[in-house]
Amino acid sequence: MSGWLIKDTIVVPLSGERTWFHGDIAVIDDRIVDVGENLTAQYNDLKKIPGKGYITMPGLVNAHTHGAMNVLRGCGDDMPLHDWLFDRIFPLEDRLTADIARAGCMSAVLEMIRCGTTAFADAYFFMDEMAKTVLESGIRANLSRGLQDLPNGDTHRLHEACEFIRRWQDKADGRIQCWLAPHAPFTCSEDYLKKVMETAVEMNVGLNIHVSETREEFNNSIKAFDMTPVERLNAMGFFDQVPVLAAHCVWLSEDDRQILKAKKVRVVHNPQSNMKLGSGIAAVPALMANGVPVALGTDGAASNNNLDMWEEIRAAALLHKVNLVNPTIMPAAQVLQMACPIGARVIGFEDCGTIEAGKKADLIMIDLDQPNMRPLYDPISQLVYAAGAGNVDTVMVDGQLLMRHREMLTLDEEKILYMVQAAGDELMR
Amino acid sequence: MSGWLIKDTIVVPLSGERTWFHGDIAVIDDRIVDVGENLTAQYNDLKKIPGKGYITMPGLVNAHTHGAMNVLRGCGDDMPLHDWLFDRIFPLEDRLTADIARAGCMSAVLEMIRCGTTAFADAYFFMDEMAKTVLESGIRANLSRGLQDLPNGDTHRLHEACEFIRRWQDKADGRIQCWLAPHAPFTCSEDYLKKVMETAVEMNVGLNIHVSETREEFNNSIKAFDMTPVERLNAMGFFDQVPVLAAHCVWLSEDDRQILKAKKVRVVHNPQSNMKLGSGIAAVPALMANGVPVALGTDGAASNNNLDMWEEIRAAALLHKVNLVNPTIMPAAQVLQMACPIGARVIGFEDCGTIEAGKKADLIMIDLDQPNMRPLYDPISQLVYAAGAGNVDTVMVDGQLLMRHREMLTLDEEKILYMVQAAGDELMR
Repeated sequence: MSGWLIKDTIVVPLSGERTWFHGDIAVIDDRIVDVGENLTAQYNDLKKIPGKGYITMPGLVNAHTHGAMNVLRGCGDDMPLHDWLFDRIFPLEDRLTADIARAGCMSAVLEMIRCGTTAFADAYFFMDEMAKTVLESGIRANLSRGLQDLPNGDTHRLHEACEFIRRWQDKADGRIQCWLAPHAPFTCSEDYLKKVMETAVEMNVGLNIHVSETREEFNNSIKAFDMTPVERLNAMGFFDQVPVLAAHCVWLSEDDRQILKAKKVRVVHNPQSNMKLGSGIAAVPALMANGVPVALGTDGAASNNNLDMWEEIRAAALLHKVNLVNPTIMPAAQVLQMACPIGARVIGFEDCGTIEAGKKADLIMIDLDQPNMRPLYDPISQLVYAAGAGNVDTVMVDGQLLMRHREMLTLDEEKILYMVQAAGDELMR
Repeated sequence: MSGWLIKDTIVVPLSGERTWFHGDIAVIDDRIVDVGENLTAQYNDLKKIPGKGYITMPGLVNAHTHGAMNVLRGCGDDMPLHDWLFDRIFPLEDRLTADIARAGCMSAVLEMIRCGTTAFADAYFFMDEMAKTVLESGIRANLSRGLQDLPNGDTHRLHEACEFIRRWQDKADGRIQCWLAPHAPFTCSEDYLKKVMETAVEMNVGLNIHVSETREEFNNSIKAFDMTPVERLNAMGFFDQVPVLAAHCVWLSEDDRQILKAKKVRVVHNPQSNMKLGSGIAAVPALMANGVPVALGTDGAASNNNLDMWEEIRAAALLHKVNLVNPTIMPAAQVLQMACPIGARVIGFEDCGTIEAGKKADLIMIDLDQPNMRPLYDPISQLVYAAGAGNVDTVMVDGQLLMRHREMLTLDEEKILYMVQAAGDELMR
């Protein structure tokens, strides 16, 4: 048998009734086949991974990022969103080449694996570069070529997006899923959004879109259309036929929340990006109380400025407590659900995100013998409120080890760091 | 000559006009003696530390923590402050012994050095254990035995605090400074606060106190005394004669802010603790615009739940932007000032916190060849918005290396992790 037996570990399954327990996890090929106590006799042929001194949990899911933007890390801080976007980011994006984007993608995937992320959703340009990186690195991803109208009515971007889907859908043993990603209701015309939506139905793929990120977007939509961004999308039937992943959703009316709930829209909360750009605080506790699935994302490195999901976990747990002056809001267990099973499900990977027999073996092992993790009383508390990227020791996706004892196994770290600095220097020249 | 020449590094001096530059830093004994370009000829006798691929900056200052509380890490999450304090923390604190506290102190100092903290302020019980840990570990600290009235009028705690000061003041080559720390205006009577204050004047030491942490404290003070906590302390003359370090200051009136400014009170902002306990958001930008020096602290591990100053740096930079819906508030350079030079000054170490000739050699080296640090355009941005504890490679205090290439040089990490888990298990039994 080809696989792994993780022995004597603290399992945080994020599924079932027990929040954590001591046990073993058996992995064969790309799937978890068994979880329980004393599995050695049954699975003695599997290679052993000693799990004592580690928490083993599902990998983190970064449900909203733009990996290639890693080359833009830290090049537009402390600026208002409009100036940031129009004066810094858009002009630099105009200068991107496939080679520069490739360096950004590789740096992003390297950074995510190092932090314990095993799956992500990404919408941007040069998506072939990201797909190749996903294929080579062994990580899992939902990928979309970002879309906006062109002033001349040209639809080559949508054409490219469809070609991209045909090329990459279900590739890398199913680790790649492809969707369509119109940028936002304020950057796409209604006709264009409808065209993209119809294409998604034809191709049977989901939609990934930015929704109601800023107060300006919200107010301008009401001014121009007498509808909120969510109401507009709803009126177009945008939420009706295929899964929709709606990033940000910071500015929502009570009616908007009811629409998101009724239409089963999937929301991604990006707390640090919203904080840094001063966008506002999404009403995540209210959304979740309404039954809307809310996942977590880092957003791109240009507005974060790293891809560390532990920081988003912590920010999500803490920000709503202080915002609502209520320390019982967003308890630790709920935030872990957002970071793993909800994240996996909303980006289209139904059989990932928990540690259960039958699920894909996307696992991470967290080193407890570091100063921030002792004493250990409650693994859930420790993961949400104390852990960090530096505690991630081992990363497995589809049963394949991508990092072991912090050594990268599928990517050449030194080369990538050199490449991304060189690419950044070229971009800024 | 005994000392170090850090060669070809990116220097972030946090002093003077240049925010960063390439150069060398010469350290002899406990002080920086020179900073500039091409210092090799002059300081060729010094041992070399290659600085290429690193940012060298002043060590971080954790201006408010309770180190021994590391044994209480994660044992009271997602609870209202009152229940947290009275139902969880106080009963556990009653069971503390010197041995348990010692394990907490050692774990806290280990954790802080690992994260790049070179100095901290701590007020708690069993402070001899912390002083011994500071002495042995090589870190720098402002230490105070925490004080509260006893119901029977006994003043043995104040007596202990004075004995502690006599025993430890200026010890460890001046790395230890001792102050007096009455807990808070709501936990100490006015007579007691006055007695502590008079003692501080007699002994010529500063005062470290929690002020206006919660809305309840603020409102109760107005109800009972017709004065805010800050007004009460001011009316007692608490701010008049010795330096006062006031932690939290979340709930302040405009008059309070004017008092803090006029009386040169030093404030410590603990953003993550305030978020986690749902205490509120301190008006730090307004305070700093008024000229009040505001430093950063982690608070204790029972309410944070780690002692990672990078998280406080990030939280301080991001929280006020979203709170004021203004991405230009709290720019990166300002937050680094809070974390280093302001921090050092407000906890009583005037000759620390910057990289300049004549200052104490309290330095850290940040590894740039990690995925979250490339590409590098602006070191200040990278430190505040992208860096983390895992990037800290080397820590020097008073010219002595405490960590080199992530290896602890003065503390036995494995032993301390074992000790603190055992101590925690005993405490919880």
